Amino acid sequence: MIHDSVDAAKKAKGGKSDAAQEQEQMIKGTLSKIKNKLFVMSGKGGVGKSSISANLAVGLADKGFKVGLMDVDLHGPSIAQIMGLSELLDINEARKLIPAQKGPNLKVITMQCLMREADQAVIWRGPAKAGMIQQFVSQVEWGDLDFLIIDAPPGTGDEPLTVVQTIPEAKAIVVTTPQEVALADVRKSINFCQTVKLDVVGLVENMGPFSCPGCNTKISLFKSGGGLTTATKMGIPFLGTLPFDPEVVEASDAGTPIFTKNKSNEFTKALDAVITKIVKQL
Amino acid sequence: MIHDSVDAAKKAKGGKSDAAQEQEQMIKGTLSKIKNKLFVMSGKGGVGKSSISANLAVGLADKGFKVGLMDVDLHGPSIAQIMGLSELLDINEARKLIPAQKGPNLKVITMQCLMREADQAVIWRGPAKAGMIQQFVSQVEWGDLDFLIIDAPPGTGDEPLTVVQTIPEAKAIVVTTPQEVALADVRKSINFCQTVKLDVVGLVENMGPFSCPGCNTKISLFKSGGGLTTATKMGIPFLGTLPFDPEVVEASDAGTPIFTKNKSNEFTKALDAVITKIVKQL
Repeated sequence: MIHDSVDAAKKAKGGKSDAAQEQEQMIKGTLSKIKNKLFVMSGKGGVGKSSISANLAVGLADKGFKVGLMDVDLHGPSIAQIMGLSELLDINEARKLIPAQKGPNLKVITMQCLMREADQAVIWRGPAKAGMIQQFVSQVEWGDLDFLIIDAPPGTGDEPLTVVQTIPEAKAIVVTTPQEVALADVRKSINFCQTVKLDVVGLVENMGPFSCPGCNTKISLFKSGGGLTTATKMGIPFLGTLPFDPEVVEASDAGTPIFTKNKSNEFTKALDAVITKIVKQL
Repeated sequence: MIHDSVDAAKKAKGGKSDAAQEQEQMIKGTLSKIKNKLFVMSGKGGVGKSSISANLAVGLADKGFKVGLMDVDLHGPSIAQIMGLSELLDINEARKLIPAQKGPNLKVITMQCLMREADQAVIWRGPAKAGMIQQFVSQVEWGDLDFLIIDAPPGTGDEPLTVVQTIPEAKAIVVTTPQEVALADVRKSINFCQTVKLDVVGLVENMGPFSCPGCNTKISLFKSGGGLTTATKMGIPFLGTLPFDPEVVEASDAGTPIFTKNKSNEFTKALDAVITKIVKQL
């Protein structure tokens, strides 16, 4: 099903086969039951985008919203690791993928679950990737959701472009770290959103101040303040700064997001404030 | 010149026009004068790949080697920022791009220099990107070099694939950080290298232990030991661990790589040991 990439590639090139039209209908049907689609993006990898996507989904579910979390990063899907998913996915009678259920309000699906070997590298050219993403989006059985959180691959290339085109009503949450080499890329991301007419909910700055466990000194590992400055300059809302904490890294590695593991952690509290802002704004 | 992407896209699809054959000849001619091509790659972004590429190039030049540094990341080129390049590039009488000269032994070129606005997002589909990268590689006037350091985009997609196919004799240096979500991606990168028959020089672990400036406590920000374990398990040489230091971040942001700025920095010293290992191994 998912490997039907010749047809998918044909569709990506603009020709619309019957299968492509059917797929479009399936995507529309699936998306119509989801109130808010949030596309978590970053210009640069390694800024904690997947970690924020996962904790954002857990935090929203915690507040009683029905939430879906979808990882569409073909090359480095991290959500399976962070959410502790190891099972292969089931397919229902309509041949749709059933996401993994995590607690009463949260459903999770990642491209990782479709791969037989976890360490397999996906070496595909753009059009095949576009087709794969479109099929993936069309064939998930989400049901009714308040929020769909989409963890997209970094950059401004094929994959984010395909996601935007497939889910045009999505809104973006842009993640950055405070230093200039990351901000240069995040400005590109914001320009990308403007070019493709994607609404931006706001900018989140990750990996902010770190408190030394030995002496409590506050240390700016990746400089400070760059997120707010950039948001102001680019005219988008600033949603907040999340502190750096090795416990977040460990929680992600262990398959239990920090939002589930430790409610009194400073990162959890700061993200909770960001979530409140996002919900108010939508 | 660089924007001739229709022809480039045609070539990427397999058809060989006269222009494509001429381009292949140009690439062969350029590469024949370069002894070692090192492809710095990572499965995940944000692990410090560009910072390591830049400092590796500076370190090799420092030892008297003739070095070229090339950034082929279309979506988030960081080398211009790290190396403090702002000038637009000149073209010589043969219509080839002249890299910026940094000291007697180091030449640098990045795709950023080809863009009019630094914050512009490049929104291109795969085949256009492949063509752009091939043209870029073919049209740089490097002259004789001992080393060409190629800073490639993260992942295992179009761009690294195109670079490997364009420069098949390159060898890979794989960069990771110690935590599992990064290592999962790096295993994919190593499998990518094996699939496309790219020799791996070894694995470098970045963002290792951090010393608190307040109390000297050693802190593992992103866990520890994952790089060595992964290298051993995957059967590739482990080149060393580089400590985390906010001074490296600041130096990169300020346009002076740490290797130039501070020879007694612990990161500089650790990278110097890595360079010695690389040179011995080639």
